[in-house]
Amino acid sequence: MPPQPAVKALFFDVFGTLVDWRSSIAREAQALLAPLGHACDWHAFADAWRGEYQPAMEEIRSGRLPFCKLDLLHRGNLDCILPRFGMIGVPEHILVNLNLAWHRLDAWPDSAPGLQRLKAKFRIAPVSNGNVSLMVDLARHNGFAWDAILGAEIAGDFKPKPKVYFAACAALDLLPSQCMMVAAHSSDLSAAAICGLKTAHIARPDENGKARGEVAPSVPVDIAAKDLEDFAGKVAA
Amino acid sequence: MPPQPAVKALFFDVFGTLVDWRSSIAREAQALLAPLGHACDWHAFADAWRGEYQPAMEEIRSGRLPFCKLDLLHRGNLDCILPRFGMIGVPEHILVNLNLAWHRLDAWPDSAPGLQRLKAKFRIAPVSNGNVSLMVDLARHNGFAWDAILGAEIAGDFKPKPKVYFAACAALDLLPSQCMMVAAHSSDLSAAAICGLKTAHIARPDENGKARGEVAPSVPVDIAAKDLEDFAGKVAA
Repeated sequence: MPPQPAVKALFFDVFGTLVDWRSSIAREAQALLAPLGHACDWHAFADAWRGEYQPAMEEIRSGRLPFCKLDLLHRGNLDCILPRFGMIGVPEHILVNLNLAWHRLDAWPDSAPGLQRLKAKFRIAPVSNGNVSLMVDLARHNGFAWDAILGAEIAGDFKPKPKVYFAACAALDLLPSQCMMVAAHSSDLSAAAICGLKTAHIARPDENGKARGEVAPSVPVDIAAKDLEDFAGKVAA
Repeated sequence: MPPQPAVKALFFDVFGTLVDWRSSIAREAQALLAPLGHACDWHAFADAWRGEYQPAMEEIRSGRLPFCKLDLLHRGNLDCILPRFGMIGVPEHILVNLNLAWHRLDAWPDSAPGLQRLKAKFRIAPVSNGNVSLMVDLARHNGFAWDAILGAEIAGDFKPKPKVYFAACAALDLLPSQCMMVAAHSSDLSAAAICGLKTAHIARPDENGKARGEVAPSVPVDIAAKDLEDFAGKVAA
């Protein structure tokens, strides 16, 4: 077996892996919509909104629609689910603000300190389906000190399309084998591995609600960790 | 006159504005080529290499050649000037290393502390003709804490083409009037102003050698400053 090139860059999935989208969206939706007299299970609202995420991206991945920022898909998905919860006539400025809740998601507690340790040893960048401005806002909100914002908007397509992983490697002048995708989702890691990247799984057992997240990878990975601090320890950062 | 929207993001030129390319390139060229027995005025060598910068980009701006990373242009320019200095047969690994000297340029002393102050108030990003990996390396080398790496590679063309300024604004979801281009070169600021961006000039009187840089802008600008610390003071950051 030939010697493996050293990993130089870590690429991070963000929604679910670094930030707890479900609690944040449920809280923001309640804060913005309850004062209008709307009521529902706010976690179910968050799940419904997130539930439209993959189908919306699939329209673009399939080539049926041209690429656009995830913000635009999030807004279409919001308009789509509101009537299901009986919410009609929500003022436009509230919808604009609610859609920006995705720019204000709170990180899991280990994310920022883990990234800080990892940055000392590796180039670090988000390779998320979120757009650049969304990633910039999440970084400011949570103290993520990225080297660069890579991901879907740079590539003009959405994960798990190979183009997104390859574009990230190319931006840093690195071979796929010099890059490691870090995610809480086996599907993301499986796609990255096919492109030749190394992979690391982060357990987020409660991502989709209590005991409704990946405790362990369902595909072969190079590293499996309990959280980002555990991962930093495993790669000696 | 309608009220002016507040500036939310600062876009920075890098070569000359934040980093002293000339001293760094002269020093690195000497360090790598003198041990091979080569000798010359190393500042003249740096000037000659930089002298090919605009003509090389013009081939792409004009549409005669497709876009490529600045690293590739730098290498072509290096190969072009070496014979002028009588330097033939330099080993490939030395040329590769010397070309990466552009990734290791030293900042002017006020750049990193100035950026740190400015980041507290504004989104900050390089909008340089340098490629993403080059910007990442310069940021690590000099402690620039960017929000994102924008610029030529994101836009697929080189400044002063309008596309580069517009792509940077669009990446952050901002109007041009909400963004300010910060540069030591009046030509850059003039092009940004035509696109609707605000502009700030930073004096770098010695950029091209003693008293061979812009002491003041030769075009109208919104702010003119002595250095980045002075600029930070002028925008209350």
